[in-house]
Amino acid sequence: MPYVNIRIAGSLTREQKKKIAEEITDTLERIAKKPKSYTYIAFDELPDENWAIGGKLLDDE
Amino acid sequence: MPYVNIRIAGSLTREQKKKIAEEITDTLERIAKKPKSYTYIAFDELPDENWAIGGKLLDDE
Amino acid sequence: MPYVNIRIAGSLTREQKKKIAEEITDTLERIAKKPKSYTYIAFDELPDENWAIGGKLLDDE
Amino acid sequence: MPYVNIRIAGSLTREQKKKIAEEITDTLERIAKKPKSYTYIAFDELPDENWAIGGKLLDDE
Amino acid sequence: MPYVNIRIAGSLTREQKKKIAEEITDTLERIAKKPKSYTYIAFDELPDENWAIGGKLLDDE
Amino acid sequence: MPYVNIRIAGSLTREQKKKIAEEITDTLERIAKKPKSYTYIAFDELPDENWAIGGKLLDDE
Repeated sequence: MPYVNIRIAGSLTREQKKKIAEEITDTLERIAKKPKSYTYIAFDELPDENWAIGGKLLDDE
Repeated sequence: MPYVNIRIAGSLTREQKKKIAEEITDTLERIAKKPKSYTYIAFDELPDENWAIGGKLLDDE
Repeated sequence: MPYVNIRIAGSLTREQKKKIAEEITDTLERIAKKPKSYTYIAFDELPDENWAIGGKLLDDE
Repeated sequence: MPYVNIRIAGSLTREQKKKIAEEITDTLERIAKKPKSYTYIAFDELPDENWAIGGKLLDDE
Repeated sequence: MPYVNIRIAGSLTREQKKKIAEEITDTLERIAKKPKSYTYIAFDELPDENWAIGGKLLDDE
Repeated sequence: MPYVNIRIAGSLTREQKKKIAEEITDTLERIAKKPKSYTYIAFDELPDENWAIGGKLLDDE
């Protein structure tokens, strides 16, 4: 651990995932003192029609 | 918040997701007093072979 | 399945959880045609200091 | 319940999922005394670029 | 990875968690060829009133 | 969205959670272009005996 699950609607480029993983792993090392090798990060990219805010699917907006 | 994650095997139509999101958001507003705009709902639709009940994959049944 | 996970900051009364579980199970039966006995609902009630929106812990607000 | 979520990067064959589901359901029956029919298992297979360990995406390694 | 999340209502003894963790880690090594050291297992023990099956909280039954 | 779930064994101080939430929300704004107000972060702090790595509970080590 830690295990971090990032869930978004839509997609991220490989480059975005790479940078986000680097930064979050660094944040958890500096602030929570978790060795980098322990941190797992899993990205879930959902279709817009699978995410609702305020009772409306995102592809409605 | 709230964050609601609905996980099913198989798929839902867009219309089903739309109605489910509306009803659950309404339920949480009426009963838990959560403003509608705060409620996130994420649907995960898994292949039947990725879900097991009683030790058997669903596509076995 | 379905498996539904409802995550909130703060707490719900037993009565609120009971009603929410009834309504969501009913919603999934009517709209998604899932037999009631199949639906699992798990509530996670997190302390306010364990939930952040917009980069601020909820107990800051 | 129990609800078990197995998340991996890469994929499993149908045969692997079948055996894993059988064994874990059996483990939970023998050790935790959970009737087999109660155990739900959901597999999530993520692309390698959606999983990071030690700040690096798995398809970097 | 893998990351395994086991969610139950009620509680497990430390001894039960220990044996379940050993067996599941072994299962994933033998069948999915995942090195033991890679497998993370997280147990969530929920109060009975936080879990519903068939629209009824478990402490109702 | 995004919804970020950070799961650790052990606990974090309120100050650590506050800083982690700020940094991750900032990371997702800069890199993924997600407006800060959209980002939900939920922290789960598990007892050491509820987390296993390599088949051993963390409080064994």
